[in-house]
Amino acid sequence: MRKFKLLLEYEGTRYVGWQIQPNGLAIQQVLEEALKTITKKKVRVIGSGRTDSGVHAEGQVAHFTTASKMTPFQFMKALNSLLPFDIAALAVEEVPAEFHAQKSATGKIYRYTILNRDHPTALNQKYCWYIPHKLNLPAMRQAARYLVGRHDFSAFRATNCSAKTPVRHLRSLDVRKRGDYLIFEFEGEGFLKHMIRIIMGTLEEVGRGRRSAAGVKELLESKDRRQAGATAPAQGLTLVTVFYPASPRTPLGRKRKSAKKGG
Amino acid sequence: MRKFKLLLEYEGTRYVGWQIQPNGLAIQQVLEEALKTITKKKVRVIGSGRTDSGVHAEGQVAHFTTASKMTPFQFMKALNSLLPFDIAALAVEEVPAEFHAQKSATGKIYRYTILNRDHPTALNQKYCWYIPHKLNLPAMRQAARYLVGRHDFSAFRATNCSAKTPVRHLRSLDVRKRGDYLIFEFEGEGFLKHMIRIIMGTLEEVGRGRRSAAGVKELLESKDRRQAGATAPAQGLTLVTVFYPASPRTPLGRKRKSAKKGG
Repeated sequence: MRKFKLLLEYEGTRYVGWQIQPNGLAIQQVLEEALKTITKKKVRVIGSGRTDSGVHAEGQVAHFTTASKMTPFQFMKALNSLLPFDIAALAVEEVPAEFHAQKSATGKIYRYTILNRDHPTALNQKYCWYIPHKLNLPAMRQAARYLVGRHDFSAFRATNCSAKTPVRHLRSLDVRKRGDYLIFEFEGEGFLKHMIRIIMGTLEEVGRGRRSAAGVKELLESKDRRQAGATAPAQGLTLVTVFYPASPRTPLGRKRKSAKKGG
Repeated sequence: MRKFKLLLEYEGTRYVGWQIQPNGLAIQQVLEEALKTITKKKVRVIGSGRTDSGVHAEGQVAHFTTASKMTPFQFMKALNSLLPFDIAALAVEEVPAEFHAQKSATGKIYRYTILNRDHPTALNQKYCWYIPHKLNLPAMRQAARYLVGRHDFSAFRATNCSAKTPVRHLRSLDVRKRGDYLIFEFEGEGFLKHMIRIIMGTLEEVGRGRRSAAGVKELLESKDRRQAGATAPAQGLTLVTVFYPASPRTPLGRKRKSAKKGG
């Protein structure tokens, strides 16, 4: 059997998320069906992790094993000829048997985008959270700094999150302004269920003056989800990159940027 | 009566185009219905010009007249609360009675985007023409240069185009490469029906080596539509800016950039 690594881009709007579920179409399922058509065998596709319904990916990574003799390039062309318009295979590569899209991952970058002005966008609305109320960006930056580092993120965790531990290392949280867009880039080893979206719902309250920046430090220490903000809309969130240990045989595993402090 | 100027953004995918037609929903129609709801009167919306079905706009301009006492800001907020997700009012401004979105326009910028690589995009596919075959960009640039200037563009005109004259002044045709995207920016006083898309269909043939750059000069001189390339897909085309004479009372009328030679 051979193992292949997939680099994937998708728009999450039409899907129940990455993982196969009974209540709708999942991205994993679409990929498995395409690979079954290509290889004439049932193929299991393992992703680096789940993305929620409505969340997008510029660089999701997955793997599958197959007895097929096709080249990586042939797999890429065959997949793109079968996949719907909102899922694309950006690259396919043969990897050693030890590679595992989830277990080998050493980190991830997610981006959350807010559009902050008095009128919405028609061309970019599926990729941002539109907030017409003026936001206090310096306060949001200050609050973001309290979250960087290794912490118990219980306050920013979905109530049905099944992770064994609520401790995560948020390596950096960069906040940038690009025109009317506020861009929050999260880098960490891994994230709890809804963690980034609950952080964003909380930072929005800071931006609107409903919560102080220092209050976010207290919230983190409280470990109490009920004290945090609402879960921000999925459409503002994009999985940007999944990191793997650098290897000459795995050029898709981009090296992690040097860790930076938030803000 | 008062006159208002609208700056509009839209994604053309779901529409039959700007202009009201019997065979589907037009952007003009959606705007007129929203303004009827707001003002309780039938309102006619006049655009700077038509855009085809599937063509997008970042800066379409339109005007309407009304007896309403609402402020421009109130109109903008009311429109955006009623318009669907793929149409947005970016700005509204009161203008003198002489202003006419179509007749006062002095020029337009359109952008056509090609994605040229061996795999498609899932996040940007509605805004580009995906061409997997390697394109010869220097040859396309050379061909583009022959088109800049005042010419009879009969060879690049839809057979059912109703314009009185086929002569148009293409002020510039800039060609840029941004990663895997090839971006063609057309600036002119006005354009014939399908002119930009027929030019792009022809430049694609040059890029693939099926037509020489010099052949485009001959094609222009032939004035024969049958010798030109196919009409390129609508989704790669975006109306970027409409120019109006600068006036202290019309800040939306961006000044035209200095004319540049193509390439």
